[in-house]
Amino acid sequence: MAKVILHQGKQKRIANGHPWIYRSEVKEITGDFTPGDIVEVVDYRDKFIGKGYINPASQIMIRIMTRDPEEEINEEFFRRRIQAAWQYRQHVVRDSNACRVVFGEADFLPALIVDKFGDYLAVQTLALGIDVHKDTIVKVLQEIIQPKGIYERNDVSVRQLEGLPLTTGFIGEPFDPKVVIKENGIRFVVDLAGGQKTGYFLDQRENRLALQGLVKGGRVLDCFCHTGTFSMYAAKFGAREVLGLDIAAPALEVARVNARLNGYSDICTFKETNSFDELRAMEKAGEKFDVVILDPPAFTKSRQAVEGAIRGYKEINLRGMKLLPPGGFLITCSCSYHMKEDIFLEVVMDAGRDAGRQLRLVELRRQAKDHPMLLAMPENHYLKCVVLQVW
Amino acid sequence: MAKVILHQGKQKRIANGHPWIYRSEVKEITGDFTPGDIVEVVDYRDKFIGKGYINPASQIMIRIMTRDPEEEINEEFFRRRIQAAWQYRQHVVRDSNACRVVFGEADFLPALIVDKFGDYLAVQTLALGIDVHKDTIVKVLQEIIQPKGIYERNDVSVRQLEGLPLTTGFIGEPFDPKVVIKENGIRFVVDLAGGQKTGYFLDQRENRLALQGLVKGGRVLDCFCHTGTFSMYAAKFGAREVLGLDIAAPALEVARVNARLNGYSDICTFKETNSFDELRAMEKAGEKFDVVILDPPAFTKSRQAVEGAIRGYKEINLRGMKLLPPGGFLITCSCSYHMKEDIFLEVVMDAGRDAGRQLRLVELRRQAKDHPMLLAMPENHYLKCVVLQVW
Repeated sequence: MAKVILHQGKQKRIANGHPWIYRSEVKEITGDFTPGDIVEVVDYRDKFIGKGYINPASQIMIRIMTRDPEEEINEEFFRRRIQAAWQYRQHVVRDSNACRVVFGEADFLPALIVDKFGDYLAVQTLALGIDVHKDTIVKVLQEIIQPKGIYERNDVSVRQLEGLPLTTGFIGEPFDPKVVIKENGIRFVVDLAGGQKTGYFLDQRENRLALQGLVKGGRVLDCFCHTGTFSMYAAKFGAREVLGLDIAAPALEVARVNARLNGYSDICTFKETNSFDELRAMEKAGEKFDVVILDPPAFTKSRQAVEGAIRGYKEINLRGMKLLPPGGFLITCSCSYHMKEDIFLEVVMDAGRDAGRQLRLVELRRQAKDHPMLLAMPENHYLKCVVLQVW
Repeated sequence: MAKVILHQGKQKRIANGHPWIYRSEVKEITGDFTPGDIVEVVDYRDKFIGKGYINPASQIMIRIMTRDPEEEINEEFFRRRIQAAWQYRQHVVRDSNACRVVFGEADFLPALIVDKFGDYLAVQTLALGIDVHKDTIVKVLQEIIQPKGIYERNDVSVRQLEGLPLTTGFIGEPFDPKVVIKENGIRFVVDLAGGQKTGYFLDQRENRLALQGLVKGGRVLDCFCHTGTFSMYAAKFGAREVLGLDIAAPALEVARVNARLNGYSDICTFKETNSFDELRAMEKAGEKFDVVILDPPAFTKSRQAVEGAIRGYKEINLRGMKLLPPGGFLITCSCSYHMKEDIFLEVVMDAGRDAGRQLRLVELRRQAKDHPMLLAMPENHYLKCVVLQVW
């Protein structure tokens, strides 16, 4: 096994539990290896830190798989890790037959994503060093979870940074990739083949529950509503009327199917429109809603683009607040890792000041518990969901 | 009405929504006033900021009551404010006949605390300017909430900073101050007269629910258990065995009564001991628990004492982790405002490093939703509840 020696001073973050080693942190590599191989990582004094997979083509050159020098990376390893991940979901997932089963680094299986939708799995192997173990992982998943089918969703650009091709398709027997899941008593159509990411945003499950108690009898606006998940929860929790906005016609088609599936077609209306423009138009028209939901796609995927993202977040939050009567509720989200929680809260406060409104924090939420976070790895924390009462 | 003129540059925080004006921020006061009176606050260019009550004896000289120049501070004002506060609790409190009805500044009624326990209220007026309105507040509370009785818990040292005496007692007809409340199906004895604070820690209600799914069939340790509230939830959610530790015999007596009330006497045991010492002793004895709860009293009530508090938090977290098998859960809390969330997380991470364990964040929680926070007032955020899986 090749050995990777870190520069002096670079071991601390990694020894503390962060699983990534950047190319610039590596002083020397001794021994031969093939990209994707498991290597041993030591600090500048030759002290063992962990074993991980290496890819010299990636900025993240090594990702730690184990910190136990005795632990071998073999089928038994994947069985233990996936079993532990699955057991954790038995603890934290309730009232849903859909969840994230493996969340990469946070499940000590870097770059592996496994989502369960009813009886089916969607799988992503987003780095070379995990991709080479795909067959073993699939075997173990079949053994532990016994899905009726598995779909590979490796159409993610991050794979290109690893020198991996973009690919999708059935692993094993094909099946109808449009699956109906049931989450907190609500049914949703999930398209494992054509939906965004692995088909459905599981990370907002618990945040959708935050609507309970806030929407009863009220008029609710769901901006960037995608397939209408927040809208369905609003209807379930007693909203009088729900208006969902999205620019993507195919997503709205699914939203309408979801509304029919749950008997909410009379309550939920969906409109194909740019949410920015529509928020402005509704403000001019003097429209009012009791609850406004803002769950936009990531405005920034890089640190450099944060300034522009701040402007975008501020604008929609300002507009959203203006549609609320005193005492109305705003549920405002950001799913961009680069938009840090404290900055996001400042942007929201800024919007409140410009709107001349006082903001009361009801809840500050993150991603659902089936998307845990390594405390040592801030990159794990990407989703913010802020529930406010606007006075 | 007297007018308070702020120093240049001191208006921003207050205009942004923070309700406190410190003595050092006041440039000049024109007109006569009696301590406790309502005064007008303007910036250095004579621009209206708000109206609030004044007490020159307090470091917090003025607390803003309204930002509307037309709004009078009279009985109608208190009726509107308390009605809005009560309505908010209808939105956010579920499955409990006990909640915080008024949370001071966050309900735009600075220094007023009203807690509801079943049919009874506990009231605190913690500043002179709100104390002078006590009769009106009581009248409005009786009108809106129609309690069977009200108890005054003004035995809080912070009143001395306002030049107010410490006092407790029935307001109106006396009643048995030992009240049984029902929270998420669990019954608790609350002593409005003799309990800590207003008798019961309502702010942890939702954090106690976080035990669901984590404790089933397990052995649970509840450190600093006070009257055994976390212990009761652990038993309700299926723990096999719960051990509660506290140094205060009277609190443990109530804990045992709570266990009997709910039929959990076979599951829950309580031991009078110093949790620090006991954690150390149990580690030595090789004891293991599936879930450890750490909910200590505030180790620091001042900024100066933070260093000592950090040592205390680190020690109990380190000890707690050592009692957990790989995959066990730690619920660790801090209720001290001076212990900021990011510092607390660092302390926990430090403990993890010393214990040689990897920490996975399941949930990062705050106080229950009936204790909302003004976004512009970081002082509102005092309670942290970190749920971790320890590997």
